[in-house]
Amino acid sequence: MKIEEKIAKFNDSITLESGEVLESFELIYETYGKLNSNNSNAILVCHALNASHHVAGLDKNNQLGWWDNMIGSQKPINTDLFYVVGVNNLGSCFGSTGPASTNPYTKKPYGSDFPLLTVEDWVKTQEMLANYLGINKFAAIIGGSLGGMQVLQWSISFPERIKHAIIIASTASLTAQNIAFNEIARRAILTDPLFHGGNYYSKNTYPKVGLSIARMLAHITYLSQDGMTTKFGRNLQSKENYSFSYDIDFQIESYLRYQGEKFSHKFDANSYLLITRVLDYFDPAEKFNGDLIEALSNVKANFLLISFTSDWRFPPSHSKKLVSALLANEVSVSYSEIKSHHGHDSFLLEDTEYHQTIRSYFQEINKNL
Amino acid sequence: MKIEEKIAKFNDSITLESGEVLESFELIYETYGKLNSNNSNAILVCHALNASHHVAGLDKNNQLGWWDNMIGSQKPINTDLFYVVGVNNLGSCFGSTGPASTNPYTKKPYGSDFPLLTVEDWVKTQEMLANYLGINKFAAIIGGSLGGMQVLQWSISFPERIKHAIIIASTASLTAQNIAFNEIARRAILTDPLFHGGNYYSKNTYPKVGLSIARMLAHITYLSQDGMTTKFGRNLQSKENYSFSYDIDFQIESYLRYQGEKFSHKFDANSYLLITRVLDYFDPAEKFNGDLIEALSNVKANFLLISFTSDWRFPPSHSKKLVSALLANEVSVSYSEIKSHHGHDSFLLEDTEYHQTIRSYFQEINKNL
Repeated sequence: MKIEEKIAKFNDSITLESGEVLESFELIYETYGKLNSNNSNAILVCHALNASHHVAGLDKNNQLGWWDNMIGSQKPINTDLFYVVGVNNLGSCFGSTGPASTNPYTKKPYGSDFPLLTVEDWVKTQEMLANYLGINKFAAIIGGSLGGMQVLQWSISFPERIKHAIIIASTASLTAQNIAFNEIARRAILTDPLFHGGNYYSKNTYPKVGLSIARMLAHITYLSQDGMTTKFGRNLQSKENYSFSYDIDFQIESYLRYQGEKFSHKFDANSYLLITRVLDYFDPAEKFNGDLIEALSNVKANFLLISFTSDWRFPPSHSKKLVSALLANEVSVSYSEIKSHHGHDSFLLEDTEYHQTIRSYFQEINKNL
Repeated sequence: MKIEEKIAKFNDSITLESGEVLESFELIYETYGKLNSNNSNAILVCHALNASHHVAGLDKNNQLGWWDNMIGSQKPINTDLFYVVGVNNLGSCFGSTGPASTNPYTKKPYGSDFPLLTVEDWVKTQEMLANYLGINKFAAIIGGSLGGMQVLQWSISFPERIKHAIIIASTASLTAQNIAFNEIARRAILTDPLFHGGNYYSKNTYPKVGLSIARMLAHITYLSQDGMTTKFGRNLQSKENYSFSYDIDFQIESYLRYQGEKFSHKFDANSYLLITRVLDYFDPAEKFNGDLIEALSNVKANFLLISFTSDWRFPPSHSKKLVSALLANEVSVSYSEIKSHHGHDSFLLEDTEYHQTIRSYFQEINKNL
């Protein structure tokens, strides 16, 4: 059975954190399982930088959802019990309104006219989707990486509408190093001659090279040093000796070029820029003079945080800092640090301890729906 | 007193590791202090990716040498006692023959015709310089990062000509992650439309943008995560609020752009490509089926290795691996792991424990000249 994509149209204007106003927008979403009679079994899945609403099962193109190992019948997030909602974020490029969408005023793609967004903006639009779907309170909202930031923001923005917040491999704000990687990725895109100031759609081209470099770079931060060594080491790519050229010598070079190339065909460069800025800007403590405890003073959800030992993008210390700030507010928090060699990507992969942790937590949620 | 640059011309052809032949070449170098009567007090300083022969004092442009805090009268490497030689490596861009030099056959810059090199090639040319200067055996050869690789190669290639090998913040070979960073830096340069296949000199332009991105990226790997957080954190650059644009918001963005921009004016892109490949290819164990102990079986030098706790480019584990392989060959090895927050860059900075370690070691060398 193919998962059906659905579109929610919002014709009410929203004022964004930037002060800009979006007159109307659409969100593309998918649902899995059935909403129960008292609408209490809904789970929202928030996606990370390059993912989409298609979280599980096969879509019309026979593509498996990005979190299919986690979500489905009898899986850790069991769709026999829960009604799971996957939504593509505003500003992304998989069907929700974004820079590549047609601007209703100009009848041309928004391009550089598309407003920059924040995690707060995303959560606001997701709340509009919740209203549209008749979900007053989510049994849980879950996400990894940038997805986890949205979960955290939900608990702050709409404390009454989220029962459990599950935040995986995430952080309460980027470090200088995290921002630095984003900045370089953006430079690569912005300086690509085919970027045309963001209005490349009408030129029938796109900044493929810049986007590809951005993705190669991001990819390094998703894997662990040890994981890369184990998988690639210094292995040469189908040759005996060095080429004494700048062609591919090492397997790691081939792998990264392939990843960059593949990604550049399926993702929109303007969306990439926008979402890296969403990441940079997220910092709920900032409005409270940097006091994260204060920023979390109104949260009501129960929390589960998970981090991975080899994640150097958002290492366990980030989760621990958040756990401390939550505990200082006397909310219920569980924390699990999973041993893994797969770096930041661990949150997407199957791991017995990790999946068992999620499975048990959702079994408890189910008991108390 | 200004330090005088000198040129050594070599008109004998050398066959490089790649099999290519260079008919003639020049090395630019500087010397500090006086060679003693039995030529036993010479120290060779090997430089890292972007440095030069100008290691200490002021040059004709009033620029201070890159290791001036370490080398000079009464400094840890005391030029009142030692005769220090700094040499710019073949293929670099500060006066020694490299891609930007005139090819004697075509009377045009070498550009893409300049042969790729290895650490072995560099050490071979440095040995030719030693002969030229009448130095039979160096009291010590010292270098950090890529400089340390040259020191290690000296101990392998010319075991009789090096008394002490001092290898700082270095490694016996790059990891997959190290190579990955180099590969992305090269992609940024090679795909810059102003690169023109390496022959940009005649076009009166150069791949400034690509080189700048390459440098920004490298810079992240030179600093530690903690050091960046302490220095920049999430501090905004002369503004109160986010710009909601891709302009500079954070200080770290401003810093990196400035570093990239500055570097792109002073370094040659072809040399950058070439030297990153020298880094990738270095792996003395490779000719011995990956057996580093075997690769070091003929070394005779006494070794001092130093690493820095926060260096994630070549972390202490790299030095320790090398120490073990040296100890297995029963050579004299001292090892010091210095606590530092400055990451890979620590080897260039002044630190009491670090400088005292070098000072003491050179005092011992001086006693036994």
